[in-house]
Amino acid sequence: MELPLGYRYAATYAGIRQVKKDDLGLIVSGLPAAAAGVFTQNRVQAAPVKLCRRRLAATRGTAGAILVNAGNANCATRTGAAVALDCCRSAARLLRLPAAQVLPASTGVIGVELDAKKIVRALPGLAKGLRADRFGDVARAIMTTDLVPKQAFGSVQLRRGVVRIAGMTKGSGMIQPRMATTLGFVLTDAHIPAGMLRRMLRRAADRSYNRLTVDGDTSTNDTLLLLANGASGVRPEAREMAAMEEGIAGVLEELARSIARDGEGARKLVTILVTGPPSDDGAARIARAIANSPLVKTAVAGSDPNWGRILSAAGNAGVAFDPRRVDIYLQGVAVCRGGLAARFSEAELKRKLDSPECEIRLAVRGKGKGQARFWTCDFTEGYIRINASYRT
Amino acid sequence: MELPLGYRYAATYAGIRQVKKDDLGLIVSGLPAAAAGVFTQNRVQAAPVKLCRRRLAATRGTAGAILVNAGNANCATRTGAAVALDCCRSAARLLRLPAAQVLPASTGVIGVELDAKKIVRALPGLAKGLRADRFGDVARAIMTTDLVPKQAFGSVQLRRGVVRIAGMTKGSGMIQPRMATTLGFVLTDAHIPAGMLRRMLRRAADRSYNRLTVDGDTSTNDTLLLLANGASGVRPEAREMAAMEEGIAGVLEELARSIARDGEGARKLVTILVTGPPSDDGAARIARAIANSPLVKTAVAGSDPNWGRILSAAGNAGVAFDPRRVDIYLQGVAVCRGGLAARFSEAELKRKLDSPECEIRLAVRGKGKGQARFWTCDFTEGYIRINASYRT
Repeated sequence: MELPLGYRYAATYAGIRQVKKDDLGLIVSGLPAAAAGVFTQNRVQAAPVKLCRRRLAATRGTAGAILVNAGNANCATRTGAAVALDCCRSAARLLRLPAAQVLPASTGVIGVELDAKKIVRALPGLAKGLRADRFGDVARAIMTTDLVPKQAFGSVQLRRGVVRIAGMTKGSGMIQPRMATTLGFVLTDAHIPAGMLRRMLRRAADRSYNRLTVDGDTSTNDTLLLLANGASGVRPEAREMAAMEEGIAGVLEELARSIARDGEGARKLVTILVTGPPSDDGAARIARAIANSPLVKTAVAGSDPNWGRILSAAGNAGVAFDPRRVDIYLQGVAVCRGGLAARFSEAELKRKLDSPECEIRLAVRGKGKGQARFWTCDFTEGYIRINASYRT
Repeated sequence: MELPLGYRYAATYAGIRQVKKDDLGLIVSGLPAAAAGVFTQNRVQAAPVKLCRRRLAATRGTAGAILVNAGNANCATRTGAAVALDCCRSAARLLRLPAAQVLPASTGVIGVELDAKKIVRALPGLAKGLRADRFGDVARAIMTTDLVPKQAFGSVQLRRGVVRIAGMTKGSGMIQPRMATTLGFVLTDAHIPAGMLRRMLRRAADRSYNRLTVDGDTSTNDTLLLLANGASGVRPEAREMAAMEEGIAGVLEELARSIARDGEGARKLVTILVTGPPSDDGAARIARAIANSPLVKTAVAGSDPNWGRILSAAGNAGVAFDPRRVDIYLQGVAVCRGGLAARFSEAELKRKLDSPECEIRLAVRGKGKGQARFWTCDFTEGYIRINASYRT
């Protein structure tokens, strides 16, 4: 898969995390890019989130670079705002960009002071290392409890030429994005005006990152940025915007799924489909309630076709429905029809559930047109082990 | 502790659960008792919940007996309503009570047909076994994944004499009562009119069962019943009602705490105190968000003074507050002041957190008068082990 034109990448170890593994990344666009972001809705927001939001407003959606560190969230610290500002300012100077065009992002432990000097000292080397083919290095540098780096690529064939999309993300725990997630950076070389880009990102995030939960905890640092630098020379025509948005949403969905698959301790990616409530929003609330139920997720871990827990979780979503009109399918097998047990071979279904991908489908019979898809993972002892010791 | 006068109890094994352990219980009042109940708010409600609610309405709050089984929730089954009705009718005939005065309750697996014959066959023996001192037998018969039976006792000295209160409850997982919990039966020999009893129960449940979570899942069968048979001959005077309610609330709080302490896989009882938001409701929402955060609960399991997770969970409660005005205390030790790290000895605090009881206190500085107390437990591999195999 070809990377979008006009971007360069670098990563290095700045000594922020204790393990010697790259913890600082830089993404630079050769041309000023249109930029849009969505951010955590947590009342407690990290300094880089606040600065990033302010900068996108000040520049009306223009950016030249993203500076990101792992190992420290730069949240709930005395010096947070100054640190974020200093680091971005140093990067801007080195890159000869207006200061407001460098967007910051951080992830890692909360409540520990981040030493700006470590980052400022690492910046010259980082800038020198910028290369068009080091996308994967940055994807690796932003990992925390992630087991694998997470990237997704796409392209869209438009009348005037092809445009490319590349996304990276991180995250494994403290995952229930409400407006974005943890960190995600998506780049395209299409030419898209900032206002249009914002609308595209909001809608695409709603069907991807906002349909994802690992543990129901929304982080203080969630940041999802979308840059469009126009380096392809291709500007989608008005009637091609839908195809462009579809391409972006496809990359976002793949990134969201990759987070669920790599959920802390997870062995299974779980896709939840809900159809039949009156509205999409109602369907999404039911899907989210199922996705967040520890009882459902431990049953999936144990390959236990325990549909009673799914029905009970759905009943807690705060959405009105008649249980006697509910059908539930696991891996395509009907386990509940009209709110009652269906006949199925338990041994056979157990085997089908012993799979790296599980599907739960809940259908409310009737005329309701609402539907939603949601992603989560199973819930295993691994999650407990990781989180009883890791300092978020 | 003396039991309330005028009640008799029996328990037996009716063959509902697979393990041979009592699974059927009966509580009978010699006099018609005033009765009040609060029930699950899950949209999916078990047949006995619906019948119990209907009967309390029909009798305007009068009951003679409670018939309860464990091992099967009688929920999401074809024959549920008929089974609940048949069993209560048989019991009423044996006890020579009006049918509407027998209140049903069930707990156990969802979606499996409950065989009424097993219960009807066991009833004559059960009725013969009724004795005033078998309260504990019923408390044991309603256990499912509980490790210990849960009982609480109290008495209130009124001007005209003493009245006694006794409560039993069960529950260990699928616990986040919103109006009641799992099962709870509280008996008193005071004479209290039904309308007054209902109000007392609602208020007392609000500060006990409704302030409790193990896993954020609200069951389909939650039922909390309060009976007052007047067998003491003592009727609280108007100005004594507050003391009476306090006595009842005290028993309910002890029962709620005992559920959290015995949460599935739990090693620690966690009490969460929140003060300073504008309203009690806001404080309770913050406390609930902390109590339901798997990241906070795994940190408690690991005795990790990870206050960043507590602050982040509070930020997700949907309640407005300024993080810079938040102080957090663990076991009485300040770990966060004004939203920033406080100085404390980590090793010493870790030792203090290695305790069967942990306290998390979050205070928002300022003029807000809201406060709330909430109970939960830590989150260990034990929860996963139990629920990856147990069929709820």
